[in-house]
Amino acid sequence: MTDALEHVLLGGRWTASIDPRGSFRAEDPTRAAAIGPSFPVSGAADLEAAMAAATAIAAELAAAPAARIAAFLDAYAAAIDADADTLVALAHAETALPAEPRLRSVELPRASGQLRLAAAAARQYAWTDPVIDSKAGLRAHRAPLGKPVLVFGPNNFPFAFNAVAGSDFASAIAARNPVIAKAHPSHPATSQRLAQLAHQALLASGLPAAAVQMLYHFDREPGLRLAADARLGAIGFTGSRAGGLALKAAADKAGVPVYAEMSSINPVFVLPGALAERGPALAQEFFDSCVMGSGQFCTNPGIVIVPGGADGDAFVAAALRHFGEAAPRVLFSAGVQQGLQQAVATLLGAGAELLAGGRPGDGAGYRYLPTLLSVDAATFMAHAEALQTEAFGPVSLLVRAADTATLAALAARFEGNLTGTLYRAADGGDDAAWQAVAPALRARVGRLIANKMPTGVAVSPAMNHGGPYPSTGHPGFTAVGMPASIHRFTALHSYDGVPEALLPLELRDAAVAGLQRRIDGRWSDAAVGAPT
Amino acid sequence: MTDALEHVLLGGRWTASIDPRGSFRAEDPTRAAAIGPSFPVSGAADLEAAMAAATAIAAELAAAPAARIAAFLDAYAAAIDADADTLVALAHAETALPAEPRLRSVELPRASGQLRLAAAAARQYAWTDPVIDSKAGLRAHRAPLGKPVLVFGPNNFPFAFNAVAGSDFASAIAARNPVIAKAHPSHPATSQRLAQLAHQALLASGLPAAAVQMLYHFDREPGLRLAADARLGAIGFTGSRAGGLALKAAADKAGVPVYAEMSSINPVFVLPGALAERGPALAQEFFDSCVMGSGQFCTNPGIVIVPGGADGDAFVAAALRHFGEAAPRVLFSAGVQQGLQQAVATLLGAGAELLAGGRPGDGAGYRYLPTLLSVDAATFMAHAEALQTEAFGPVSLLVRAADTATLAALAARFEGNLTGTLYRAADGGDDAAWQAVAPALRARVGRLIANKMPTGVAVSPAMNHGGPYPSTGHPGFTAVGMPASIHRFTALHSYDGVPEALLPLELRDAAVAGLQRRIDGRWSDAAVGAPT
Repeated sequence: MTDALEHVLLGGRWTASIDPRGSFRAEDPTRAAAIGPSFPVSGAADLEAAMAAATAIAAELAAAPAARIAAFLDAYAAAIDADADTLVALAHAETALPAEPRLRSVELPRASGQLRLAAAAARQYAWTDPVIDSKAGLRAHRAPLGKPVLVFGPNNFPFAFNAVAGSDFASAIAARNPVIAKAHPSHPATSQRLAQLAHQALLASGLPAAAVQMLYHFDREPGLRLAADARLGAIGFTGSRAGGLALKAAADKAGVPVYAEMSSINPVFVLPGALAERGPALAQEFFDSCVMGSGQFCTNPGIVIVPGGADGDAFVAAALRHFGEAAPRVLFSAGVQQGLQQAVATLLGAGAELLAGGRPGDGAGYRYLPTLLSVDAATFMAHAEALQTEAFGPVSLLVRAADTATLAALAARFEGNLTGTLYRAADGGDDAAWQAVAPALRARVGRLIANKMPTGVAVSPAMNHGGPYPSTGHPGFTAVGMPASIHRFTALHSYDGVPEALLPLELRDAAVAGLQRRIDGRWSDAAVGAPT
Repeated sequence: MTDALEHVLLGGRWTASIDPRGSFRAEDPTRAAAIGPSFPVSGAADLEAAMAAATAIAAELAAAPAARIAAFLDAYAAAIDADADTLVALAHAETALPAEPRLRSVELPRASGQLRLAAAAARQYAWTDPVIDSKAGLRAHRAPLGKPVLVFGPNNFPFAFNAVAGSDFASAIAARNPVIAKAHPSHPATSQRLAQLAHQALLASGLPAAAVQMLYHFDREPGLRLAADARLGAIGFTGSRAGGLALKAAADKAGVPVYAEMSSINPVFVLPGALAERGPALAQEFFDSCVMGSGQFCTNPGIVIVPGGADGDAFVAAALRHFGEAAPRVLFSAGVQQGLQQAVATLLGAGAELLAGGRPGDGAGYRYLPTLLSVDAATFMAHAEALQTEAFGPVSLLVRAADTATLAALAARFEGNLTGTLYRAADGGDDAAWQAVAPALRARVGRLIANKMPTGVAVSPAMNHGGPYPSTGHPGFTAVGMPASIHRFTALHSYDGVPEALLPLELRDAAVAGLQRRIDGRWSDAAVGAPT
């Protein structure tokens, strides 16, 4: 019954899946009820067709004018903004994330804004980092990979990390690489609508129509074979550690760079002075961050380290009041709910004590009670690996630490994380504790945060939404923030003695409006050879 | 007989190998005769001791003042220059590379110059690429890995790529990471001497003494275990594809980034106009490049694509005269000689015709005749993989192509390479051919060269001594050229809302002399908040 299935975006057009291996529908997570049409699970023939079509146009796309790339990204962003009502309704129905403010006022503008930042970076060659050595006759820049980029979108951001609209997509396209998007099965209709807007904008742009392709879903085995295909230029993945590591293992063997954002528990240290100064307010901040988006964030505060003593006890008591009174939160899917139950069981099995929640809670659909666990520092140190199990949902583990030395020892036990946070006293009273704890934490995280919960990820050139293994696969790259996130999908190209007329535009002598280039050791707006 | 073995540099001092698994001596390749003292093959205990010592001081080194790092690198460079007589004598004896000009006037100054460039980059924070978003309160830079870097040196550059003196070493130290150097067994006494100079400079610098460690050799199995140790920050490797891929597979599993420069045949296209214009001169240039250093370069011209017709025939005849009259060249070792014989046999087996050489040649030691092979384009296309076998030594394969379309088709068949060269006519008569061939070649190489053989690798910020897989493991990084080569050994660190006094020096408001920072989207010398 292939005709009954929605079409995939393949080879530049909407078409029936060549070899569907099954089908699925979206669910309303509040009712655990199937909604909307049936989508195909693509088989190996779809994957091969996508790879072949993207490979065939990769060189053409790499050579496309920067302005055309930028125009496409801008047009797509405008289409998303114009279609906000429909997109938000679809995403809300499929994810149960709040339409306001989350989807409509936060995430959708973030997604379209990110596409516009990518457009600006593309238009001005801001991601190419030209380096010109005029004496040696050598010029280098970052260039397109000249191969397709495979993007796996996660369940938790139907717009801003969507495989066909999010940061990986915008970054790969900005660098003039074709994208093969693998949508997340949690929100197929949202992804379909986005892909329709992308496709329309693409057809109007004059870029090759196969520059953007999208499949709704495919199984693990053909997915791993696709990841190991040497025709791929790179992979962008946001999702679970198990999924990311499997993809990385497959791609590593083929020499395909993988940018996998896999898991993070984002330790938060509340230093003693901050605790004394504003403990109850911090407890509220912590709770709000833990349950925002039902806790389904890569940067959710999974572990909070709280000093012992009366201030610490008061913080815990205040937090417990929030958690204890909280209604269950709706999760994306049965899989998320099951994973969360398992993670909580692992934490309890490793010695954590349950303070609140710890079960699905009442109501239809996929729900879970905001859950607070606690463990003493000695137990954490003894079972540090198990107690760093990511619980993807509204769950946090408190670790009680007697003194600053213990805080520092705990910091040194964390795996690689996207973020690490330190709350400190406004009066500088925590500076010694900061100096004791921050270096070990700094070395283990991509972003070190002061006095804020980690759940906000600003789209900024100075953001790092990345971190040491195993939070990602490489400590040198960020998944968010232009133009840095574009660098993941580029190759370094040097030109040696090549006549000026045969160089890429941004490496020729003439200045490029809006672009600084590193000429003979200095970043400069000038033409090569211009008096300085 | 541990006492009879030379000492390793371990844990900050020269000491007997803890668990030697055997011993070896250098050889004079011109006589195949052992020379010099006996060096230990380190066992697992040495490797573990090196890892433990480096790990113990990694945080201290990461926090060391930039000026101290720079002073060490400068002092080491000065010591190398001052010790040139001894170093050149040792390296010449162990490698048979010419003392002049190669070792004394080219490679040794290149090595010390590279250390000085690394010192300058360290002193001025040039490798840290600070990005400041003053409105969002976010600041990011490249930071030390905070973990040891394992460096494997190759056989073919006893100074400039030596594990304890070359580009990987200088780059890793400039980023304030400890180095565990694995010297190449082809030149142990040279490496020992370099390590002595490094150690002396290190002790005088006030940096942790275990920041530089060196083992002469270890076996494959403990080496692969070391590469898979999660305590490692990264690996720098220069050597064979087999060795590099094995290391990469081990390290990938542990999430350790590997920068492996593995193999390259560096295709050279002679376009028809250039051939007509200066064919005989190009044949001389080709021969000289092929046999320089006995052809033992990563950037040796392994394949030269020559159009058919009378001009092409004349080029081949001229090349053949050079090759046919040439004396055998001395190789580094029996292993290199055997590998070369095997590679030539593979090329012949895949359809190449032997025009000259093809055997060890007369004389003692490890010699091989400059060797020229030829194949037609159709055979090359039919056996492209086998005919791209790297022959590490004075061996090149000519590929005859009937027309421009064939040149372009050949370009599209190459694996990832460090370099690709196009010779073009001075009068622009080859521009159409360039446009036909260059895009496919460009996508497959790190450095695109016009009108020069690939064997010169300038130490320039615009150099790319890297390339697509399998020439290296990642297309975005270079092994040569400051500050870019340093980027391999860094982590991206973002600071979110962190008070200015708690930031690294180069991210604070005040300007840093000599350092441009990207402040609110513009590279600038100014302080944050300064009027622009």
